[in-house]
Amino acid sequence: MPVSESSSSPTHAGPARARRGSGALQKGQQTKAVIVEAALDLATQLGLEGLSIGALAELTRMSKSGVFAHFGSREELQISVIGEYFAHFEQEVFHPALREPRGLPRLGAMVSNWMRLVAQGSQAGCIFISGAVEFDDRPGPVRDALANSVQTWLAAMNRAVIQAKEEGHLRADADEHQVAFEIHGLILALHYEARFLKYPGATALAETGFNHIVARYGSNPPATELAPLSRRKVSVSPR
Amino acid sequence: MPVSESSSSPTHAGPARARRGSGALQKGQQTKAVIVEAALDLATQLGLEGLSIGALAELTRMSKSGVFAHFGSREELQISVIGEYFAHFEQEVFHPALREPRGLPRLGAMVSNWMRLVAQGSQAGCIFISGAVEFDDRPGPVRDALANSVQTWLAAMNRAVIQAKEEGHLRADADEHQVAFEIHGLILALHYEARFLKYPGATALAETGFNHIVARYGSNPPATELAPLSRRKVSVSPR
Repeated sequence: MPVSESSSSPTHAGPARARRGSGALQKGQQTKAVIVEAALDLATQLGLEGLSIGALAELTRMSKSGVFAHFGSREELQISVIGEYFAHFEQEVFHPALREPRGLPRLGAMVSNWMRLVAQGSQAGCIFISGAVEFDDRPGPVRDALANSVQTWLAAMNRAVIQAKEEGHLRADADEHQVAFEIHGLILALHYEARFLKYPGATALAETGFNHIVARYGSNPPATELAPLSRRKVSVSPR
Repeated sequence: MPVSESSSSPTHAGPARARRGSGALQKGQQTKAVIVEAALDLATQLGLEGLSIGALAELTRMSKSGVFAHFGSREELQISVIGEYFAHFEQEVFHPALREPRGLPRLGAMVSNWMRLVAQGSQAGCIFISGAVEFDDRPGPVRDALANSVQTWLAAMNRAVIQAKEEGHLRADADEHQVAFEIHGLILALHYEARFLKYPGATALAETGFNHIVARYGSNPPATELAPLSRRKVSVSPR
């Protein structure tokens, strides 16, 4: 089940087209996939605007025209990278959460997985965050693809909050936009303070912030608490 | 009174050096100030990495070598821009808040002014936010100057929280790092959702988020609420 309620990811187009194609077409798709993966690596380091056909050719040991043949333009390459990151995000954050029961356990897992992705990505930034800064005042198809991906994910968060209300884990009068906004804030502060300011205690602050949200909106007593990442995967020392 | 407790802004160096200089020196400083102001305009649109001596020369109608004479390097130019933005931030956000009484009124004014700067800057991004993304994995003097400015401001926020505890407006056991982290999250979510996602309701969500923080940590009854920006300066419609 993808993040979006429709049957495919919003920015993921292309590969499906040639699913039943000839061997040559399949090889072309494989090569394209290799390039997109290398491009995603590059984009998480340099940003989407740091992508260039030249750097990718060097990285994949292909000719510039070879790389260019798979992407009509730099914009098309950037949009493919956004689709690839969305699929990666879905796999790391959303799919494992679906194994948790509906309601607060699932919402908690989504938040916990999201925090882990953001805090552990010391080598690889989140292009949903860096891309927002790069493209906030640059209209066009790349910005649209990025905003579309982020909105799809935030809508999934909103649905998880609504389900937690339906399950009686959160108060019926909790505003899902407000809850999702406050969670989004914790994620962005974690990304900022862990990655840029290098605060080792940022993950614990974000976790406590989420527990505050659960306490505020939770039915009484709160049905679940976020199990500290700190004790599981991330080493955290006091700020 | 500057944001920092020492007598000068952390990244503001240079201009003071020639305070008593000759007329020629003063003219040099004026020209430098004009260039820095133009550079700040450019950086809020294109990011600190978008700055170039060439673009600035065009903008200020000077020769490249003329611009270059005032800044030994692009890095020095970027650091001057950070100092200029810090001074601007201090003037817009911190100084007006100092006119409010110590404690929650002053903390509320700092947050309110910060939100206004972030939400109304539809044409001009906050380089404390965009710069963090640009420089999070690029060590060097520009990153250090930027982190230094942000840390100085976050320390001022921490002090305001401590004062609010001293005044009995916030509970004595409130953790100032936690409070400042949660406020920082609201600001970052506001910047993201208002600027990138173009949600007109983002300011109201951020204000409500701050009121939740005050309610959580406040002495009972809470001493103040953030007067909605929406009714004062920012036009807000429901999300």
